[in-house]
Amino acid sequence: MKILVINAGSSSIKYQLIDLESVERNAVLASGLVEKIGEPVGRIVHKTYAGGAEKKHVEERPLPTHNEGMARVVELLTDPAEGVVKDASEIAGVGHRVLNCGEVYSDTVRIDAKVKEAIRDFFPLGPLHNPANLMGIEVAEKFFPDAVQVAVFDTAFHQTMPPKAFLYAVPYEWYTKYRLRKYGFHGTSHKFIAAAAARYLGKAPADTNIISLHLGNGCSIAAIRGGKCVDTTMGVTPLEGLMMGTRSGDIDPSALEYVMDQTGMDIHQMLTTLNKKSGLKGVCGVNDMREVIEAAAGGNEMAATAFEMFCYRVQKYVGAYMAVVPNLDAIVFTAGIGQNSQPVRERVCAGLEHLGIRLDPEKNRVRSDDPIELQRDGAPLKILMIPTNEELQIAVETKQIIDAANA
Amino acid sequence: MKILVINAGSSSIKYQLIDLESVERNAVLASGLVEKIGEPVGRIVHKTYAGGAEKKHVEERPLPTHNEGMARVVELLTDPAEGVVKDASEIAGVGHRVLNCGEVYSDTVRIDAKVKEAIRDFFPLGPLHNPANLMGIEVAEKFFPDAVQVAVFDTAFHQTMPPKAFLYAVPYEWYTKYRLRKYGFHGTSHKFIAAAAARYLGKAPADTNIISLHLGNGCSIAAIRGGKCVDTTMGVTPLEGLMMGTRSGDIDPSALEYVMDQTGMDIHQMLTTLNKKSGLKGVCGVNDMREVIEAAAGGNEMAATAFEMFCYRVQKYVGAYMAVVPNLDAIVFTAGIGQNSQPVRERVCAGLEHLGIRLDPEKNRVRSDDPIELQRDGAPLKILMIPTNEELQIAVETKQIIDAANA
Repeated sequence: MKILVINAGSSSIKYQLIDLESVERNAVLASGLVEKIGEPVGRIVHKTYAGGAEKKHVEERPLPTHNEGMARVVELLTDPAEGVVKDASEIAGVGHRVLNCGEVYSDTVRIDAKVKEAIRDFFPLGPLHNPANLMGIEVAEKFFPDAVQVAVFDTAFHQTMPPKAFLYAVPYEWYTKYRLRKYGFHGTSHKFIAAAAARYLGKAPADTNIISLHLGNGCSIAAIRGGKCVDTTMGVTPLEGLMMGTRSGDIDPSALEYVMDQTGMDIHQMLTTLNKKSGLKGVCGVNDMREVIEAAAGGNEMAATAFEMFCYRVQKYVGAYMAVVPNLDAIVFTAGIGQNSQPVRERVCAGLEHLGIRLDPEKNRVRSDDPIELQRDGAPLKILMIPTNEELQIAVETKQIIDAANA
Repeated sequence: MKILVINAGSSSIKYQLIDLESVERNAVLASGLVEKIGEPVGRIVHKTYAGGAEKKHVEERPLPTHNEGMARVVELLTDPAEGVVKDASEIAGVGHRVLNCGEVYSDTVRIDAKVKEAIRDFFPLGPLHNPANLMGIEVAEKFFPDAVQVAVFDTAFHQTMPPKAFLYAVPYEWYTKYRLRKYGFHGTSHKFIAAAAARYLGKAPADTNIISLHLGNGCSIAAIRGGKCVDTTMGVTPLEGLMMGTRSGDIDPSALEYVMDQTGMDIHQMLTTLNKKSGLKGVCGVNDMREVIEAAAGGNEMAATAFEMFCYRVQKYVGAYMAVVPNLDAIVFTAGIGQNSQPVRERVCAGLEHLGIRLDPEKNRVRSDDPIELQRDGAPLKILMIPTNEELQIAVETKQIIDAANA
């Protein structure tokens, strides 16, 4: 079954066409990125993988709206010479990544007018993403009228959190009136990891207890008990929790008032700074972890401090979630940094030996596209590295909706 | 040696006169509270303890400034019939609680012009407390010209935190230019607890590792490794960290912008709400933990939720600090709630058994003015209840300054 996965941003469309039998049996037929939509010159990078070899096509052309971008993607996918499908109607389903639908949907749903209305209703809580996601849906409906359109919410996996974890200790009417609460994000990734860890460990998901560390551009940790999320670090927005490339994560709320008073910034400038000029970048000027580590190795003290801060905050949340998840099976590193940064994994685990976390430095050096174990022989707790795959997870859930509809 | 301990607020002076040989050998001679300074009618409650019996004197009279308030305290202390000293000059030292002096002083100091200037310099970071503390110092200098005046900073004990714990992941110049960082508060209490726990355990402070849970009107936890603070929950102000009576503690910084946009509040109204109308009060309308527990027992669901949230957040920080403090000797409950609330101690410990925290429900019922152990026999980790005594700690440190000056 061919599933197109779409992640629409305000000026971009990221897509992947997956031929899917099951989560283990799948093949990426094509993937690409349409960007600079609305700018004078747009850009499309389209890749195909026939015979296992990546073939890359790049073009620049004006793309006034998402409409022209998607039209071109359809042409590329169905190109008589280079295309991967004969016709758009071969695509059975389109799975859309959608940021937030609050408590309305706690699982993946087939898109209808009501779902679109709910996505619109949550514009205030996802002011950048939700409108773009909806635009992506409407364009896809036009170009793939025969496909089942499915919404996969980045917050859905976290809907199992109990009130003690998702409520903020603020006036309760901010929750009832304004829907202010911890939603959590990266849900699709954490859900993929929860399932992949259970498979790897040979356990039923309902018996699997893990701490999932999604460390990438954005970073979040989820406490997963019996396969279900019971707590996570991101909040009403993806700003809360860990230190990230450019995001501050946790900070005394008074700091906002204090710095606004000192600088004359308004609250929007403050939040822009906390989102775009903070984190690793704020502390040492560089937001890419590889560059931070390189700079630190070269004697840059602020880079070393930023690295220490980043890892220390991960350690504290690992401890916090160990309190929340008894009978822990494993901590799982994933996403760009989690999968690839040996120094980060090493630093995070160093000093947590007393909690049963004992990294094997040799195993930590191995690179792998499959799940691997990183703990020392005989260590009480498993340390896993599992590559995440949000597109595949979206495709799998889209297929489940289609299968259920056809059953 | 007679030491007067003063905690001056913007319209109040709290005081205690302690006759002190050592931390174990001390006697409170008098204590009291001057309040409503500057209001039409002020109020003084003055207590003495001759022969072990509390004798209480209450009076109301106009107290235009701290000056009149302190003048009256001196009269009460030296009253020919009821006074506890003959003359103000009997008082060897006055120990002042001062909120914040940032990184300038990491220990208790004898007050001179430079110290007062530093306290003044930190007005922006302690806009309510530092000016009042300075006023208290200046009034005391006038009425006790022969006494050694000593400043004990609420932040000093936390100055041993490493940068990875005290820096926020924000533009670094906010630290260098505006001194924005985690300072931590309740330092005098955590320091007292660290020393008292070491004494109780019969260990050298440098070998003692504890997590100190100061749960009172304000709540904070300190991770204490080898007798030194390595991390704490409060931040640049006492708002960060745990849920408190009326304070929110941790919250996604984006929440401030979102709720300000929804309600039209400005940043100062927002911070007032987070400080005064949040926490237990925000969630269930009541800020006193005893009333919250009573209401929850009576079927009030929001009170039950507030109680759960409060305890859950304590659990998570206990886990976080267990990650930070290897070879932990004990977790220590202290302050109003920590010393007296059996349900809070029970709920915090329940579910942390897998971390070695096993509360004995029988021992948890005992009330004591001395340190007691609450863990089950054979439990791997000690759970202590130790009554805190910030006034005594301030007196002890004041005496140390005097002894050093005389040595």
